[in-house]
Amino acid sequence: MKILVTSGGTSEAIDSVRSITNHSTGRLGKIITETLLAAGHEVCLITTKRALKPEAHPNLIIREINNTNDLLVVMQELVKKYQVLIHSMAVSDYTPVYMTGLEEVQASSNLEEFLNKQNHQTKISSTDEVQVLFLKKTPKIISLVKEWNPSIHLIGFKLLVDVSEEYLIEVARQSLVKNQADLIIANDLTQISANQHHAIFVEKEQLQTVQTKEEIANLLLEKIQAYDS
Amino acid sequence: MKILVTSGGTSEAIDSVRSITNHSTGRLGKIITETLLAAGHEVCLITTKRALKPEAHPNLIIREINNTNDLLVVMQELVKKYQVLIHSMAVSDYTPVYMTGLEEVQASSNLEEFLNKQNHQTKISSTDEVQVLFLKKTPKIISLVKEWNPSIHLIGFKLLVDVSEEYLIEVARQSLVKNQADLIIANDLTQISANQHHAIFVEKEQLQTVQTKEEIANLLLEKIQAYDS
Repeated sequence: MKILVTSGGTSEAIDSVRSITNHSTGRLGKIITETLLAAGHEVCLITTKRALKPEAHPNLIIREINNTNDLLVVMQELVKKYQVLIHSMAVSDYTPVYMTGLEEVQASSNLEEFLNKQNHQTKISSTDEVQVLFLKKTPKIISLVKEWNPSIHLIGFKLLVDVSEEYLIEVARQSLVKNQADLIIANDLTQISANQHHAIFVEKEQLQTVQTKEEIANLLLEKIQAYDS
Repeated sequence: MKILVTSGGTSEAIDSVRSITNHSTGRLGKIITETLLAAGHEVCLITTKRALKPEAHPNLIIREINNTNDLLVVMQELVKKYQVLIHSMAVSDYTPVYMTGLEEVQASSNLEEFLNKQNHQTKISSTDEVQVLFLKKTPKIISLVKEWNPSIHLIGFKLLVDVSEEYLIEVARQSLVKNQADLIIANDLTQISANQHHAIFVEKEQLQTVQTKEEIANLLLEKIQAYDS
């Protein structure tokens, strides 16, 4: 099958030397991609410069992106050409709009004015004691996937931090329904370490739990093979 | 001589999945360290997990840090044990204090209250359309070096973006005086690429210009050998 995988974490520039980065090593996306290639699938991996990547392979295309907007543009182009999307990238929820000293913010009678401003310096000055950064929500790319390709099999991820398993599953179920996904893989940062990656596969009528990145990749492969039959 | 080198860029956490990162590959610090080791010096390199690093060497110690506060703690310990400091790390000027939705900020009659708040969620919620992040200045570590060790030879860097050469030199001179440095290496991001690294060595009575990272490392070595004689 033709499978699109995203991995790594996006970065949103504040200025030319600073950015807000979502942490993700890309290790899981690498293992998933290698597992799919070994089973004979064609993979396009959308990832970042910094992320871990698989070795070159005749059935692998790698596309590097930087920020959420890059990702949107590339996904809009590619989603319609693939049968399955495995969206494991950590995507920034917010992107910087304007950064300024506290005094300018205190002097304002309408804070919304800052949402229309832009920093014209290429490197923001560092003289103020306190800076205020305004950020706006980025588009939720996962929610657009089925508009771009109604027949694609959509597999998403939900990462929370230090929550109960019940709550994690509930949030994953909401994402499943809202984004018309086939499967959401739910995980908690406190249960991810070098040798362990506790994850719950949340589908409409089924829950399955695995304990390592390799187990995630193997169960994913099984799910994908079933889509084909 | 015993030389302390810093390289890479610090990251300041917003929450457990996001941080503000200062871009720096660590390539220059790696070349400087290799040049010093080849000339027989002992080097301690303070750098980050993500930065490029030299190969292991019997005269090299590597210490990894993450944020500005880690750097402060390690430098306070090490600066007094070394004869020269080459401080090439890109250090965050600001660190996140509190992030919240625009509505909470609009409802406040005194924005300074947010400087005493802390986010208690481990991953900040992403329901608000607009978020506001308050940041405070980090300690200027370079200004503390001579307090910790008055006899250390201090070599700093000044990176600006798209400014005139006159202005770049003026700012570097101010840093030279203010931080009691022996030398400030001034550079402009627009004049740094894969094969080029235009830099101006600014000393009290001298200006010298070089064009590559290797030339920076070699001229630095020359300066340091002169301190010893």
